Formats: sequence, C-alpha cells, structure tokens
Amino acid sequence: MIFNLGQFNLWFADRMRCHSFDIQHIAFDKLEKWGFDDRFGNLRHTSGKFFSIEGIHVETNSQSLTNWNQPIINQPEVGFLGFIVKRVEGKLHFLMQAKMEPGNISFIQLAPTLQATRSNYTRVHQGAAPPFLEYFRDRRKAKVLVDSLQSEQGGRFLRKRNRNIIIEIPEDEILPESEDFIWLTLEQIHELLRRDNVINMDARTVLSCLPPEFSDSVEPEKDEGAPMHSLRDILSWFTELKCKYDLSVRTIPLGEADPWVIEPDRIFHPSGNFFEVIAVRVEADNREVRAWTQPLLKPCREGIIAFVVKDYEGEPHFLMQGKVEAGNFDIVEMAPTVQCLTGDYRRVADEDRPAFLDFVLDATSESVLFDSRQSEEGGRFYREENRNRIVRASADFPEMLPDNFIWVSLRQLKELMRFNNVVNVQARCLLCAVTPELLAA
Amino acid sequence: MIFNLGQFNLWFADRMRCHSFDIQHIAFDKLEKWGFDDRFGNLRHTSGKFFSIEGIHVETNSQSLTNWNQPIINQPEVGFLGFIVKRVEGKLHFLMQAKMEPGNISFIQLAPTLQATRSNYTRVHQGAAPPFLEYFRDRRKAKVLVDSLQSEQGGRFLRKRNRNIIIEIPEDEILPESEDFIWLTLEQIHELLRRDNVINMDARTVLSCLPPEFSDSVEPEKDEGAPMHSLRDILSWFTELKCKYDLSVRTIPLGEADPWVIEPDRIFHPSGNFFEVIAVRVEADNREVRAWTQPLLKPCREGIIAFVVKDYEGEPHFLMQGKVEAGNFDIVEMAPTVQCLTGDYRRVADEDRPAFLDFVLDATSESVLFDSRQSEEGGRFYREENRNRIVRASADFPEMLPDNFIWVSLRQLKELMRFNNVVNVQARCLLCAVTPELLAA
Repeated sequence: MIFNLGQFNLWFADRMRCHSFDIQHIAFDKLEKWGFDDRFGNLRHTSGKFFSIEGIHVETNSQSLTNWNQPIINQPEVGFLGFIVKRVEGKLHFLMQAKMEPGNISFIQLAPTLQATRSNYTRVHQGAAPPFLEYFRDRRKAKVLVDSLQSEQGGRFLRKRNRNIIIEIPEDEILPESEDFIWLTLEQIHELLRRDNVINMDARTVLSCLPPEFSDSVEPEKDEGAPMHSLRDILSWFTELKCKYDLSVRTIPLGEADPWVIEPDRIFHPSGNFFEVIAVRVEADNREVRAWTQPLLKPCREGIIAFVVKDYEGEPHFLMQGKVEAGNFDIVEMAPTVQCLTGDYRRVADEDRPAFLDFVLDATSESVLFDSRQSEEGGRFYREENRNRIVRASADFPEMLPDNFIWVSLRQLKELMRFNNVVNVQARCLLCAVTPELLAA
Repeated sequence: MIFNLGQFNLWFADRMRCHSFDIQHIAFDKLEKWGFDDRFGNLRHTSGKFFSIEGIHVETNSQSLTNWNQPIINQPEVGFLGFIVKRVEGKLHFLMQAKMEPGNISFIQLAPTLQATRSNYTRVHQGAAPPFLEYFRDRRKAKVLVDSLQSEQGGRFLRKRNRNIIIEIPEDEILPESEDFIWLTLEQIHELLRRDNVINMDARTVLSCLPPEFSDSVEPEKDEGAPMHSLRDILSWFTELKCKYDLSVRTIPLGEADPWVIEPDRIFHPSGNFFEVIAVRVEADNREVRAWTQPLLKPCREGIIAFVVKDYEGEPHFLMQGKVEAGNFDIVEMAPTVQCLTGDYRRVADEDRPAFLDFVLDATSESVLFDSRQSEEGGRFYREENRNRIVRASADFPEMLPDNFIWVSLRQLKELMRFNNVVNVQARCLLCAVTPELLAA
C-alpha cells in the first residue's frame, strides 16, 4: 500500500526507466503473422485470432451522411478487464498494473490488474499466462462487485465488448508481489485522473462501473431527490431512439471500402479525417511476448469528449446524447453531451457543428470542472488522446433539447451501467472522473 | 367497460360468429407476391418487406449438438405491440382487440390494442392504417407505463424484437368505439389466461412487462425480504454465461440448409422434429387486407414451457435457465425452468432429457399452480400451442443446480424486464399468468 502520491511518482518513474521499448512504423508487408487475406483483402492474424481489420458498408438514417464505407476492427472475442480490490482500514484499494502498450503516449500507463483478450489467456501466442488470471476465472476465490459486458468505441470496433469485472479479496489475503503492480485508493486514482494520459482507458471503463455503495468518496447523507426524469421515461426515450434510427452494417472487402486508399504503409481517407491504419514493430521487455508486429489505428485529429452537468433537486444530472455509431451492438448507446472524434473539432463548418460543442469550448474557467487529456486503448490506437471536459451548465443553458438528448442523474447512470450496451465507452470513461468533490467545486 | 365474464363470453362468441375466415394450405408456387429469390433461394415478399425465411448455419458450445443448419424467420423491422389502458374507478382497464390471425386455433384471440409491424403501419400492403396507431406514434397523447424492445422466439426468429408498450390515457378521454375492441381489467385477463388459447402471445408478452406498482392485484403489505441472490450476483451469473457460451450464426441459402428438405408444399426436417415451413391462402373480412397468401411455420409437436417456483423469505422465486438459442440477439437469455419445443417432450430419450422436465411432468396436482395451453403468434405460426405450467418446488427439490440455472425473485424479474433481451419470450408470457392469488394457492 502506498500512502502518498510522492511515493507513487517515484515508483512510476522507476517503471518507465527500468523497462525498454521500441516502436517502429513499418510497411504492411513487413508484418509477421499478419497479412491481407486472399479472399476479402482484410488484414488478419494468421491464427484467425486477436482481431482483424475489415471493411464495412454502413447505412443509417441517424445523421446527414446516410451511407459510407470504412475500415473497422473486428474483435469478436470477449476479454477480461478486471480489478482485484481489497479493503484496508475500511478503504477500497485497487491493484493497478504499470502496463506497456505499443500505442501509449510515453509507453506505460496504469491498467487494471488484468487486461487480457481470450487469445491472450488461452495463450495463442505461446507466451506466459497473465498474472492473477485465476482469480477471475474461478470466482469462488473472491466477492464480485462489478461484472458486466461493456461496449468499446462504436466508431472503430464492430460490436466489440469486454467483460468489466471487479472482485474483492479478503483484507488478510496476500497476493504474490510484483514490481509492476501497485495498490491505489479511489482518491489517489481520481487525483491521477487529473493528469494527462496516466490512467488507461481499460482502467477508466471498469472503475466507472463501481456502484455508488462501494465508493468511499465523502458523500453527504441526504434524502434522494426525485430525478428530473424517471428511469421509466429515460428507458422509453432510449427505446424510441432505437426504433427511430435504422442502422444496417454489412461487411465488405477492405479493398472495396471506397474512397479509402490502401498504400504500402497506411490505409487512409482522402479527406484527411477519421483515422489511418498503420503497422508497427514493437520490442518490449515486460510483456508476455518480447517482440511482435501488429496493425494500429492512428487518429488524424485530436477529439473532444465532454459532459454538460447541472444540479436538479440536489442531484447532479448529465446531459446524455443518444448516438448511433456503426459498430454499436444495439443501434444506439448513451454518449457524452459532446463526442467529436472524427475531424478537427476546432474547425468544423457551422452547419455540421455538433450540438453543444461551442458551449463546451467557450465555457469560462470557473464552469469547467474537469479538463484533461486521456488516452484511448494503446493496444489498438496509436497515441490517441482526446480532450476530456466536464462543464457546468450556465443559468441560460437551453431548456429545449434536441430529441436525442436527455438529462440523466448520476445515480440513474450507475443503474444503467449494470446492463450491457447502454452507456458508451466515452461516457463511462469520463464519468469515472466524477466525484462529489469535483461536482462541489 | 364490462362487469363480468358472462358479458365477455357473449361478446367473444359474437366476434367469432360475425366474421368469416378461410385458410387453405397451398403449394409455394401458389404464393402471390412471395417466392424463392434467385440468389439465395430464400422465401421472400416481392417488396422485400414483412419477413423472409432464410437458412442459417449455427455453431455453439452450449449444448451437445454443436452445429446445425435450419430455416429461420428474418424480420428485421421492429413493430408495435401496444396497449392503451385507462383507470376506471381506480382500476386499470386494458383495451383488447379480438384479432384474427391465420395461424390461430379458432381464428380469433385477444390481442393488444395495437399489433403492427412497420410494414403494416407504413402501409406497404396498401391497406387501412391500424386503429389507434396515432396514440403510440405521438406519445405526448398519453403517459407511458411500459416501453421496451423485447425479443421473440430465439429458435424461430433471427434476432427479432418488438416494441412492447403500454400507454395510459386520462379516465375522461373517450376513444372511438369499435365492436372488435373491449376493455378488460387485469383480474379478468388473468381469469381468461386460465382458459386455453384465448389471450394471444403478443398480449401476454406486453402484459408481463407491467411494473408491480401498476398491478392492482391485492398484494399484502410486507417488508421486502432479501432475495436469495442479489441483482448483482444474478447479472454476474448472466455475464459469465455470455462469456462461456459461443454462438456463431451465419446466413446460408435456404436450399443449402442440409438436411432440411424442400418439397413443393413444405420444408421439413427428415427427423420429423422441429417445425415445417408451409404456405397458406387466407380470406378474412376484418383485416386491413381481405385476402392474401403467406408462409407460416407449423410445429411438429406440442411443446412444454414450465416454471418451478418456490418461496424464499416470503418472496416467490422462479428457477431461471440461461439458454442459448440460434436467433438470440445477445447469445443467452433467461428462459423458463423447462422449455422444450423442438421434439416430443413425452418421448425424449433419457440422455437428452432437459433438466427438471420430469419434475414438471410428474408433479402432483396440488403442486401444479397453473396449467393451460397457450398459443404462439398466429401471424407466423400455424396452430402452435404449448403446454404452460407453473409447479411449486417440493421440499426435496435439489439445492445444487446446473451452472446455467439460478433462482430469481419476481421483483427482480420485473426489474430485468425493463431492459432488452434479458428475459425471453417464453418466460415473459408465462410470468404474465402469475398473480399473488395464484402463488398463494
């Protein structure tokens, strides 16, 4: 257990120093065990495992562009994103791992205790089994606090989900020691979330699912005020959107995903927007496998993910957006107020500007409750960081909202996150930063 | 409003008498506007709307038969199954429709106020708009009590869902009168559920979603006992099953769905099990269209759907089965204790007998709380009725359960039914029959 962030800083700097990594951008034909398959031209691993990059044709009535082609990551297998926690002197402590991913800014970020695809833990690549796996596979070893399948980026992954799981072990149970693991309290994690790119996406999504009763933030005892909308009305709004929006996705050969261009070392959209597919060679000294090559997605622009929040009857409410994304498992998920990841949000033409983008960008400093840069998953995305903001609604914030927006209380969001494919990964990862102290600021 | 079932009986007999219907089994080449398409040999409507019958290849690790081909109904569009209700002298009354469907036993059954596919209400077949549609399309006209997408038979439909919706109108609002509609209380509906094949499947699934606070059954005031398992543990069990079971479904040409045989007037499995695809000509005097032809699925055997129920801390608990079916939207849904629809349940070989089938069949009459025959959807299934039973667990009922079974309280089931694709249609339709009086028997 560590007792202050000074100790953490020393440990973290040490983790960076004592491991060596090297990442090189390579041409696709230099990929080992990866290649474009003969039949569809999709980029796949020779084992058929891990993930592949395929083409899709999308049709939808949910936005002004009603059909397009794009590359997407297809990763049908469900992996574990899991924390082991224990209570020490009444406070939950989370076992975090200093984990290297090839796409990470500064290589190492703090990950959950276990972060493993099924290919990892069934050992397709012949490496060592990930530490602590057995605690998650045999749940009689621990008490389950969180256990749900949660979606990942719908714009980039085809219906991908991971098992977000938190298990609590008894205080007196001693785990094997490892220099790459550290116990942190929620308070410490929240402090680190204010820094850029320290807590990785996988840790953020799992932490966001923690039910309020296990959080040890100091929340004043109070009567629960009625939320602005009942959960019934929110679910009805959600059902209405799922019926209103069509989403049809058909896989197509990657080589036919016009107007995307395949060059020897990148696949890109001629507009310069969205992302590029690239290939990298990785050398690392602390992964199950020491050297490998793989494809990564490289974003073309910095994106922004933001919530507008306001108090209603003493309860914080977040402005949620019902958003259709090509890879969504169930048409619509609840996204943050602003989620603008595809182009340069500072230069969007007036007619295409997403609702509330300007409100979030122009907010005065006293209404900005949270503002940092956070990374997307470094195992699939190359140095992707997005601006993360939480902004308090001003007194003149519009009462009338577009049909696909609704105010949802924090308690309701926690309730909704118990179920699959309701709150999207961008919303979850940003909600993870929310504490009573942050909202009281 | 009617005040006793005697009046209902007269009205219902009258509905049967004053309409005329005729159904004839025809060869596929006598279908009008339906045919086998050139490319895949699937059975489709020329408009591309309504539904189609396609082939699928299924692979799964969830049962002893790990892969097979089968025909399945593909109906991607979401329809409305909706009730208008109003409170009269404090009691909820449901507006039910005497509705003819070609596959119905005795033609007419009681349906929800509105039962319409999107093709129906966007009027692909050029008929009249269904009555009361506008109340459901513009929800400002009413208060929403239920509104969720719920699944249909996973063994027969490919990921089909319908919008189950109940809206309440003010007591003083007068609706246009129609001889085919009648207001019934929940109590009256429950009484009619004890009769065979009166309340149709669509009505049963919607009624099952009614939250307990709107039910006016006399439920004794009591402290809520803790359920046997927390909702967290139930959801974790559910997540575990979704990760444990693989389900891969690929559409294939219907003509390649070996060993299914296509004859001029039926498609069948050589074992004589499962179902047949047939074609019918329908003449009716009270539908939007007066005569038409369509395919139907005809079951080969009577099936059984049953719950084992027991009290725990004064709260009824149902034994739920996590079940994989080929057409499931999300791998696993919670099914009744016994769901045996594919072969003759009275003649299943010992090694293939589903868990608890014998317990349910051999139950003594005092432990059988509910026993009737109920129909599946007559718009798709030809005279399919299944035995519906609820049986009280005996004192020596096994404590140890197979991994895919769990006890869930009635309150928890109602909570789970607020979300999509959790509780399957067979479980919902049987839960619809449960009342405190029934459980107290």
